[in-house]
Amino acid sequence: MQRSEVNPIPHPVEIVEVAARDGLQSDPTMLSTDQKVELIARAARAGLHRIEAVSFVNPKRVPQMADAEAVMAALRCDAALESLGASYIGLVLNRRGLDRAFATGVDEINAVVVCTDTFARRNQGRSSQELIDETAGICADARDAGLPVSVTVAASFGCPYEGEVPVERLRAVLEGVLAAGPDEVALADSIGVATPSDVRERVALADDLRAGTSTTLRCHFHNTRNTGIANAAAAVEAGVAVLDSSLGGIGGCPFAPNATGNIPTEDLVYMLERMGYATGIDLHALVEVVPWLEATVAHPVPGYLSKAGIFPDSARGAES
Amino acid sequence: MQRSEVNPIPHPVEIVEVAARDGLQSDPTMLSTDQKVELIARAARAGLHRIEAVSFVNPKRVPQMADAEAVMAALRCDAALESLGASYIGLVLNRRGLDRAFATGVDEINAVVVCTDTFARRNQGRSSQELIDETAGICADARDAGLPVSVTVAASFGCPYEGEVPVERLRAVLEGVLAAGPDEVALADSIGVATPSDVRERVALADDLRAGTSTTLRCHFHNTRNTGIANAAAAVEAGVAVLDSSLGGIGGCPFAPNATGNIPTEDLVYMLERMGYATGIDLHALVEVVPWLEATVAHPVPGYLSKAGIFPDSARGAES
Repeated sequence: MQRSEVNPIPHPVEIVEVAARDGLQSDPTMLSTDQKVELIARAARAGLHRIEAVSFVNPKRVPQMADAEAVMAALRCDAALESLGASYIGLVLNRRGLDRAFATGVDEINAVVVCTDTFARRNQGRSSQELIDETAGICADARDAGLPVSVTVAASFGCPYEGEVPVERLRAVLEGVLAAGPDEVALADSIGVATPSDVRERVALADDLRAGTSTTLRCHFHNTRNTGIANAAAAVEAGVAVLDSSLGGIGGCPFAPNATGNIPTEDLVYMLERMGYATGIDLHALVEVVPWLEATVAHPVPGYLSKAGIFPDSARGAES
Repeated sequence: MQRSEVNPIPHPVEIVEVAARDGLQSDPTMLSTDQKVELIARAARAGLHRIEAVSFVNPKRVPQMADAEAVMAALRCDAALESLGASYIGLVLNRRGLDRAFATGVDEINAVVVCTDTFARRNQGRSSQELIDETAGICADARDAGLPVSVTVAASFGCPYEGEVPVERLRAVLEGVLAAGPDEVALADSIGVATPSDVRERVALADDLRAGTSTTLRCHFHNTRNTGIANAAAAVEAGVAVLDSSLGGIGGCPFAPNATGNIPTEDLVYMLERMGYATGIDLHALVEVVPWLEATVAHPVPGYLSKAGIFPDSARGAES
């Protein structure tokens, strides 16, 4: 039996690199502006072309992100880097963040809503519906400014406070978000509870709701319970063409207890490429960044591929 | 859209716990006989009913397994444990191992063949075909002795020396193994290179070849490149009803360079149960074993669930 008879037909997958934002915001080591820029630059040179570079949030709450303006300025000053044409995303949680984002020259906006009220209040000080309402305004303003805007739906698969998030709850949130006409909606498993079955069900729901619009789907998986890579496989096989991941697998969510890192970019790319899902990323260049990253954050990172080696390159050779 | 409309219908899955063999044989810490027995006992009490308890191999090559007879004797002396009715598996690589297995009173035999000549020679000092021939004898003798026998096909998805293992190579090996009429054949990704696409293709091949026999399929996945849990999901969804895993994710293969641990049992059970694949395992009891295991092997283990908590139990509660 041929692989093509039992497997879905692959399609290209775009990876959004989030180490510089989701990764660093939870890391115990505070990187300098130069180090953040270097991380982003190395990712771009390995072929990552959408990079969540900064977030515009309260520096008292998330000090790791306080130098967003400086990071963006340094990126824009690097002519060689600019020539790579990566699109830099700025995450915003409110109108104030959006204004900062406009001022710094990010290429795209990512706004965040949250499926549950408890997590919404803890994360952003407002109810779920208030965030949806505010995000509608952010979408409109971003559109007016000519910037693409994505909306990330946190706790799409479960909430660190309320536990299970019923599908009907996700439906209501997605309907509210889609009504604002974002360019892209991301289903985020912020605390890494989902399984492939959950992913297929909720991606099918989202795909159903977005039908007839130009809004595309994206998924953001954390590997907290070791299901993140399985979830990514399920997502792409369900047709999702954009996935978030974090180099080395660093990161988490400072407001979600025990949430560990995003799925590691290098591990994800290994699997996708081997499955026939083209990513445009130079995996060899990417894994070479990991030792630098570990030295820079001064701790081991969860990613597996840089330790295991890229197969079949890693094979030692047949007997002569 | 309902989950049942996009997901395959789940079925029960039996887990074979291999921490005491595949786990310990590669661990830098040498456990005492008592500690090995305690590990096996704790696994059995959590509901694991097929446990690879020992291997009968050259104690000079794998000293961690040298006390196989003592381990089995201690297990058989424990009346409370015996009443749980777990089936203990002894791994054998040759006729000498089989004789030791018969003498100790294991409940089942697991014999090993290897897809490639290079790995076969490094692992067991013989060519791939020689191992298939010898295993046929082991199957016949085990059957005569009334013991169920499984044959594990190492390097089914890739070889640490020869690299890619063509599907046609696997086909030839499986045909040779199936001709010996084992009760079960296990496809082993000894070095953790497979992806869900590889799994579906090779499980479909194995299923095709075993059709019309009573031989059942089992899969053994390593998490070396972070694809193990994704592969397990693909396997069960392709109809595989038996999976190997290792408590805490400990272990590897002493003759395969850089092969890290098996997929962690607790992480696998979390995913399977949440997907509707009943395992019969008490996940709460299982995760409680992990801190003991970490203390006993004196190092952290790769499993995620014991750190993350079982969802939704781990949720902190909605706002009042």
